[in-house]
Amino acid sequence: MNSLDQTLANARIVLVRTSHPGNIGASARAMKTMGLKRLVLVAPEKFPDPVADARAVGALDLLEQAQVCETLEQALAGTVHAVALSARRRELSHPVRSARESAVELAKLAREGEVALVFGTEISGLSNAEAELCHELVTIPADPEFSSLNLGAAVQVMAYELRVAAMAHLPGQGPREEQGELAKFEDIELMFRHLEETMLASGFLDPAQPKRLMPRLRRLFSRVTMEKEEVNIIRGLLKSLTPTRK
Amino acid sequence: MNSLDQTLANARIVLVRTSHPGNIGASARAMKTMGLKRLVLVAPEKFPDPVADARAVGALDLLEQAQVCETLEQALAGTVHAVALSARRRELSHPVRSARESAVELAKLAREGEVALVFGTEISGLSNAEAELCHELVTIPADPEFSSLNLGAAVQVMAYELRVAAMAHLPGQGPREEQGELAKFEDIELMFRHLEETMLASGFLDPAQPKRLMPRLRRLFSRVTMEKEEVNIIRGLLKSLTPTRK
Repeated sequence: MNSLDQTLANARIVLVRTSHPGNIGASARAMKTMGLKRLVLVAPEKFPDPVADARAVGALDLLEQAQVCETLEQALAGTVHAVALSARRRELSHPVRSARESAVELAKLAREGEVALVFGTEISGLSNAEAELCHELVTIPADPEFSSLNLGAAVQVMAYELRVAAMAHLPGQGPREEQGELAKFEDIELMFRHLEETMLASGFLDPAQPKRLMPRLRRLFSRVTMEKEEVNIIRGLLKSLTPTRK
Repeated sequence: MNSLDQTLANARIVLVRTSHPGNIGASARAMKTMGLKRLVLVAPEKFPDPVADARAVGALDLLEQAQVCETLEQALAGTVHAVALSARRRELSHPVRSARESAVELAKLAREGEVALVFGTEISGLSNAEAELCHELVTIPADPEFSSLNLGAAVQVMAYELRVAAMAHLPGQGPREEQGELAKFEDIELMFRHLEETMLASGFLDPAQPKRLMPRLRRLFSRVTMEKEEVNIIRGLLKSLTPTRK
């Protein structure tokens, strides 16, 4: 594989609770035209399905190799960065980037580790809890009066942007300034769990009145692409602050 | 209408001999998400059609207002610039641009006049004669091993690129360096006809051995976006060179 193919192979498309199998097929075809190979389906309503196969045309191999999981957490295992596509404004305080800006960042990170682009259901998108599992929100610029891209069309635009960005990055540009190994999704989730337990134990987080404390912390850490060593430091710190049970 | 809407209203999508009405509907929806309004259909196989309506979802208005014509010439009437989407390499000597590069140019020209993006049939694309009616060929970067974007997906990518380019141009950037009124498609076609007749009359163009002379001339003029005055000059010149019949 050349470095363009390698970079694109590191990007997975995650479709969450997709209603229409035709959209899964169209997404597979869209991915394949841009050199993306890895499709992950979280709790699809109907899959496998002949309608998905029909719409995939020459991309049946992607459907056959698609990974099906129960939760978005499982779908993001192993990724160093995940972005959530979002048409609507949310109360979430996550950063929101344009498709192009985000693709440039994703293409850069995909040279070092696995990245994910997460698409919600056709009607309601992603839940806030799901969006919060991602590092940032991405919006495809659209006419505010009719901004509902078809799911397959949205996958096509993002896959296209990713390919163009990966092509632009090709000629041996240097890696990120930071040089350490990037933290994986599951490392960071363990850190958040550790953080939450610590705050609950300390009483700082009141389960009766959580005040969006965890989402805010997630946002803070989402703005940096964390390295493994940094996650270890945070967890070491948390551990050092937790009173040992008697 | 603000200037973004105005610019986008000047861009028409032309679908030539589309086989599947579903693709017409998907294209209408793709256009509408990006603020494009004008759909022109050249000899569609089935239109209107309930399948097109179903796929258009909220973009039925575009289908209702779609213009249907018999030839690409008719579809391009009134345009100052037209680009032909093309997946395959052609023998044509037309310039080939990337989707992004082309969108920047189209967005700039659409502030002054009407432009067209022309898409061929699902299977065979455009004929060479049709592609030659356009100023340039445009390719959407894709995996060389599977480059067949669905028609609706290709329309989505181009409409998206056009919107992003038009947004970037928004804050009152100056117009093209040239300042004259741009020539319209039909002015230029008349010029080519005039040119051909002149060359036939002079014997320079041998109908038995045309040697791709006209295509090469088309290419030459396609590389410049011609102004009306320039077309008049060429035609005046041709006229002056044609011996008057006795």
